[in-house]
Amino acid sequence: MQDLCSVGKRIPKIDAVDKATGRAQYIQDLKLPGMLCGKILYSKFPHARIAKMDTSRAKALPGVRAVITGEDIPEIKMGVYKDNRPLKAGKVRSYRDEVAAVAAVDLETAAEALKLIEVIYEPLPAIFDPEEAMQEGAALVHEEHKTNVLRMPWKLHYGDVAAARKKSAYVVEERFSTTWVTHCCMGTSGAIAEFDPANNLTIYTNTQIPSLAQKDFLGALKSMGLKDRRVRVIKPCIGGGFGSKLDTYAYEYIAILLSYYTRRPVKVEFDRAEEFIATSTRQPTIARISQGCDKKGKLLFRDISMILDNGAYTSWGATTPSVMMMPITSLYRVPNVRYEAKCVYTNNTYSQAMRGYGNPQATFAIESTMDMLAEKAGIDPIQFRRINANKSGDVSPQDLRITTCGLEGCMDSVKTTLEWDQPKKKGEGVGMASLIHVGGGARVYKSDGCGTIVKMDDFGKVDLFTGATDMGQGADTIVAQIVAEELGLQVDDIHVIHSDTDVCPWDVGAHASRTTFIAGNAALGAARKIRARLLELGAKQLEAPLEKLVLRDRCIVDKDDPQKRIHFSHGGQMLMAEYFYDPTNENMGKDFKGNMSMTYTFGSHGVRVKVDEETGKIKILNYVAAHDVGKAINPMLLEGQVYGGVMMGIGYALTEQVVLEKGENMNPNFRDYKILTAKDVVPIEAPVLETYDEDGPYGAKGIGEPGCVPTAPAVANAVYDAVGVRIKDLPLTPEKVLAALREKKGLDLCGQELGNEDADACIIEE
Amino acid sequence: MQDLCSVGKRIPKIDAVDKATGRAQYIQDLKLPGMLCGKILYSKFPHARIAKMDTSRAKALPGVRAVITGEDIPEIKMGVYKDNRPLKAGKVRSYRDEVAAVAAVDLETAAEALKLIEVIYEPLPAIFDPEEAMQEGAALVHEEHKTNVLRMPWKLHYGDVAAARKKSAYVVEERFSTTWVTHCCMGTSGAIAEFDPANNLTIYTNTQIPSLAQKDFLGALKSMGLKDRRVRVIKPCIGGGFGSKLDTYAYEYIAILLSYYTRRPVKVEFDRAEEFIATSTRQPTIARISQGCDKKGKLLFRDISMILDNGAYTSWGATTPSVMMMPITSLYRVPNVRYEAKCVYTNNTYSQAMRGYGNPQATFAIESTMDMLAEKAGIDPIQFRRINANKSGDVSPQDLRITTCGLEGCMDSVKTTLEWDQPKKKGEGVGMASLIHVGGGARVYKSDGCGTIVKMDDFGKVDLFTGATDMGQGADTIVAQIVAEELGLQVDDIHVIHSDTDVCPWDVGAHASRTTFIAGNAALGAARKIRARLLELGAKQLEAPLEKLVLRDRCIVDKDDPQKRIHFSHGGQMLMAEYFYDPTNENMGKDFKGNMSMTYTFGSHGVRVKVDEETGKIKILNYVAAHDVGKAINPMLLEGQVYGGVMMGIGYALTEQVVLEKGENMNPNFRDYKILTAKDVVPIEAPVLETYDEDGPYGAKGIGEPGCVPTAPAVANAVYDAVGVRIKDLPLTPEKVLAALREKKGLDLCGQELGNEDADACIIEE
Repeated sequence: MQDLCSVGKRIPKIDAVDKATGRAQYIQDLKLPGMLCGKILYSKFPHARIAKMDTSRAKALPGVRAVITGEDIPEIKMGVYKDNRPLKAGKVRSYRDEVAAVAAVDLETAAEALKLIEVIYEPLPAIFDPEEAMQEGAALVHEEHKTNVLRMPWKLHYGDVAAARKKSAYVVEERFSTTWVTHCCMGTSGAIAEFDPANNLTIYTNTQIPSLAQKDFLGALKSMGLKDRRVRVIKPCIGGGFGSKLDTYAYEYIAILLSYYTRRPVKVEFDRAEEFIATSTRQPTIARISQGCDKKGKLLFRDISMILDNGAYTSWGATTPSVMMMPITSLYRVPNVRYEAKCVYTNNTYSQAMRGYGNPQATFAIESTMDMLAEKAGIDPIQFRRINANKSGDVSPQDLRITTCGLEGCMDSVKTTLEWDQPKKKGEGVGMASLIHVGGGARVYKSDGCGTIVKMDDFGKVDLFTGATDMGQGADTIVAQIVAEELGLQVDDIHVIHSDTDVCPWDVGAHASRTTFIAGNAALGAARKIRARLLELGAKQLEAPLEKLVLRDRCIVDKDDPQKRIHFSHGGQMLMAEYFYDPTNENMGKDFKGNMSMTYTFGSHGVRVKVDEETGKIKILNYVAAHDVGKAINPMLLEGQVYGGVMMGIGYALTEQVVLEKGENMNPNFRDYKILTAKDVVPIEAPVLETYDEDGPYGAKGIGEPGCVPTAPAVANAVYDAVGVRIKDLPLTPEKVLAALREKKGLDLCGQELGNEDADACIIEE
Repeated sequence: MQDLCSVGKRIPKIDAVDKATGRAQYIQDLKLPGMLCGKILYSKFPHARIAKMDTSRAKALPGVRAVITGEDIPEIKMGVYKDNRPLKAGKVRSYRDEVAAVAAVDLETAAEALKLIEVIYEPLPAIFDPEEAMQEGAALVHEEHKTNVLRMPWKLHYGDVAAARKKSAYVVEERFSTTWVTHCCMGTSGAIAEFDPANNLTIYTNTQIPSLAQKDFLGALKSMGLKDRRVRVIKPCIGGGFGSKLDTYAYEYIAILLSYYTRRPVKVEFDRAEEFIATSTRQPTIARISQGCDKKGKLLFRDISMILDNGAYTSWGATTPSVMMMPITSLYRVPNVRYEAKCVYTNNTYSQAMRGYGNPQATFAIESTMDMLAEKAGIDPIQFRRINANKSGDVSPQDLRITTCGLEGCMDSVKTTLEWDQPKKKGEGVGMASLIHVGGGARVYKSDGCGTIVKMDDFGKVDLFTGATDMGQGADTIVAQIVAEELGLQVDDIHVIHSDTDVCPWDVGAHASRTTFIAGNAALGAARKIRARLLELGAKQLEAPLEKLVLRDRCIVDKDDPQKRIHFSHGGQMLMAEYFYDPTNENMGKDFKGNMSMTYTFGSHGVRVKVDEETGKIKILNYVAAHDVGKAINPMLLEGQVYGGVMMGIGYALTEQVVLEKGENMNPNFRDYKILTAKDVVPIEAPVLETYDEDGPYGAKGIGEPGCVPTAPAVANAVYDAVGVRIKDLPLTPEKVLAALREKKGLDLCGQELGNEDADACIIEE
């Protein structure tokens, strides 16, 4: 691990200059010859029958090239459950439902044409609350399913929870809830579809799953009667993903259909309001949790049931219970666990993957109650967690096999950095929470693999084709560093190609914080093949034994006699190597058990807050996010990931919220959504613990998501520490804090003693 | 060799639809954001000192972004001898010399700016005839060289020519000459250069040598002070090459320099006149040849000396004597050979590679004298050639090792197809000529290799990255057929990527008819790796022994039980393989010997002509071009290559000519150049002989160039057969035929008896 030249260094992102100078090409920048603009008409009701559609006036508008509705198109099914279509026919189930689309010569004409489409709806009773939706007789979102509860029976029971509950000295039992938040990618969604004369499709699209998107689009072509065609997915520069781009969406299929009908390239691009309204959110959840421990503070059981608001259709959001299971079964040692989760259809917007993938919601419940239990047991919260900390070699109730585990070290780091034991001023408090997350891939498909091709040209420069998707997190830089390190090159000798399924190898997608680990290992495997061939060539040319040679400074060098060296040059004998890395992690079994990841990332976050008891406002004084990352391939990018994650977590904790009123988005803009901005950034420290995981590239584990996982409970715990109120519903708005403070003092919101029936009249707004 | 599904089939070019529908992107179609137009100012004299240049008025013109001259730019040396620079400083040596260049916002402004550049020349004595240029005291084109004769001593002596001459029963001794012709690519030359902020260069350029061009441009960057940068060469769709794009040219470096100075993409694109004036030609040659045979017609010696007009600078044209050597030493068995060639600087345009690479000029002399010798010996020309025919297993005086050889079969084919022995009408004649050419690569660089990467996606579709360059000859289709055949796929399952040095492996370039053989073998090697892995996977999944499995119909099939089959699908386990094929052929030694190619292509052309004795016009009645191609991977494309080659050869034989008057191009357009057009196409038959060369992919040899190699002598021999006059100077214009006919009859051009001193007054023009 010594003498590293690229790995472990604070190397700027390789695409930084392009992005800073405006050279980077986002979907917004792309324009193909003859390209048309596509635009989508959305539903005017949350639940309604479509009685009539008339597109004739729209079609007659000069400049309009195609108008399509759900009646016109082939049966293309979308989403995890195939319960969605690009354009709805018969009925709409949410305000977000796509009912028609137009392709026109420009955006203005397309928008004008949308206004000319006449749709007559017959409104249906709608349902917006998942608990209500579960009740007998509730309006059905999908009648054919007979129930609003999805048939995905997430359920796991390990040990004997009932017995453990009886044996527990202390038990807490609580209800926690979270609401909609969304990814807020700086680059809005968009796609350009184009057919060649043989009906092969090229689609330029913001996606985190180029290979699986290719598969989805091939399916669509088949539905369109186009068999055995090719689909090429080209990713432009992606302005943020965070899970939002893990599925294929109506707008992409609409671009495909419009392009097919018009024989022209068609672009569909979202504006910011559309991005808020028509892309997916994190799942709102209701968690009922109880945990118990013995007198010494040893956890005896954990029992959680989750209800998720699925919205009207099913995307990957419905599978987040699988990842919730991970902290529920495996964050801290817990010998008896019961868990079940239900996803429930409503007429709200539908949810998707979002950074943490269910883990933040589960960890909010777990880590809030960990503090409550510690208090009951009279043990310091950190000490309480240390008693129960995971350790290397553990196998958790879900069969997760913990290899490296730096959890205790992270807690120590938080304790020290935050000066945990120092006296606090009035209104100040400290809180902490920990996390476990997949750090070595997560098998959700037949393959969890990634391919890499490395070729070194005649001048010692490398082209690296990776399956990995860089959506801003710096994946390209990481794989370049690994290859540079292996080959004795500098990072700018490595050109990373990652944008084109015709060129790049297969990869399951940028999810589960898997890219550094999986794509890193794939790059490592390919680079090592090249390395071996270089050393072989060097041994011949330098007439030196192989084991005396190293690759350094773009040369093959005799380490005993460093003047004896040759620069990489092969005289037309280009070196190429390919490698496909698919880890040996496991798919979940029918019992929902299995070692889904090769390794797990741990971390502890600590936060010092000051709560203004007059306004309920929470001020974050400083924040520590310590992670066991195995090895920091690039500490600067790693810190960037942590900073970004923490700020996303703080937004989740304090301010962010998609406000849906009866299914309708009331705040489709950054200001009303209350996204944190540069001026809201808090002081964050990000200590790094390196445990050198033997399966990771140079020992690294994934760190993409963890930054936002335990943030909300850490803040909630600190607020409790500061002012003695526990908020169990995110976000922790000043209103909720103030209400809790007043409730604690026996006052209502208006400062009156409780009992006043008129409280509604004086809601405090921030 | 049986049961082939793709190889051997008449499959249309895979880019045919794109080309026919206008989707193919030529350099003319490319436009980058912010792109400027570059334009070049050429010399006004064939040889002059540049006394003064003033660019101030051009620079002041609104819209002009840069004006550069030879004085402004770093020392970048170009060409095989490095005797050329992108912009000339001090003096000009031909009308084609680039003296200044402009980058402006549009073409009109650039053209206007050129007019505002003031250049004052001091004319120098110029030299246009290579024989004069060789004389003591001739004006020197490059003073520093002290002589106009290039220091490239092409010389070979095998056996004892003097002794053999004495022993010969019959000897002929003649002088043959050829003039300038040019490639006439339908797509004119052009390049776009662009620098990124780190000064890495991307250049879009029409080139046949992407890897070597990359090397040249890297050298230029180094001269510009840009070390360790990257160069990416992207080939647009190329509208014909024929050797013209085997070098890098001033216009490409000018685009690079203008882009570097302006920090903008800059395109330099030739118009048709510029294409005629400022691109290179085939070498004009003067051949002095004698050949002798014994009484039975067995060749005893061949003695040739060649003088080539090199023009003012040196490109690959100067190395064509190395390929001339091949027919001179190895076309027919000849036990004693002497050969020397001299390339001579003149103030004419400089020459380049052109289809056949010297072979047509040498074969014109050889095959014309073969007929003359046959006549002297009283032997039928075909029989005479059969006596001397090459045979499999021969090693020629140049050490060429003949593996497969179908020469006699080709002669038979000509004889039969042309009804050689049938009585002829008056004015009709038949003629034939044969050829040998490299058919298995030609080592001119350290490597004669080509790399290929094959990846098969999850849906059984293949992306194939080849180093090969398709400039219209169909290389992409050929490699796709080979890979399809190996993998049981159809050609449209194969997507060929060949246009980008960042993606495609190394290749020495599209020259020497090497692509089918070399790139075909490279593709075969990579495909076989994939094949092996598919069969392995199939054996596991079908539980069948490996040897019972075949790849067919996009499936792995049990050949004994064809219902037992699985479609290619790997569940995210993409298959990738790379292969670099570098043949074991040899670089020429210092004695100019060496087996430069793995195998040799043979062919015989026969032609029936009718000569109008009144006008001197030659009409081609029918033409047979029979080739031993090893194996026709795609008979349709092969025929296309032969048809095109033959028409190019007929143009060379009869009409085409770049007319230079004191170095100045007098006919820079298709009409005056007299290129043959669709209406001039003659009936051509192209019988194919398959000898299945064991080194070739599926037995194939190269066939790109041969079509135009023996055409001129075949026509000249037929003209002699028809009307008894032998034309020894190309092209065989009606004027020359008529003059020869009249000379033969003892008349001058005006029909007067010879002796009339006033003949100049009545030149006949067509």
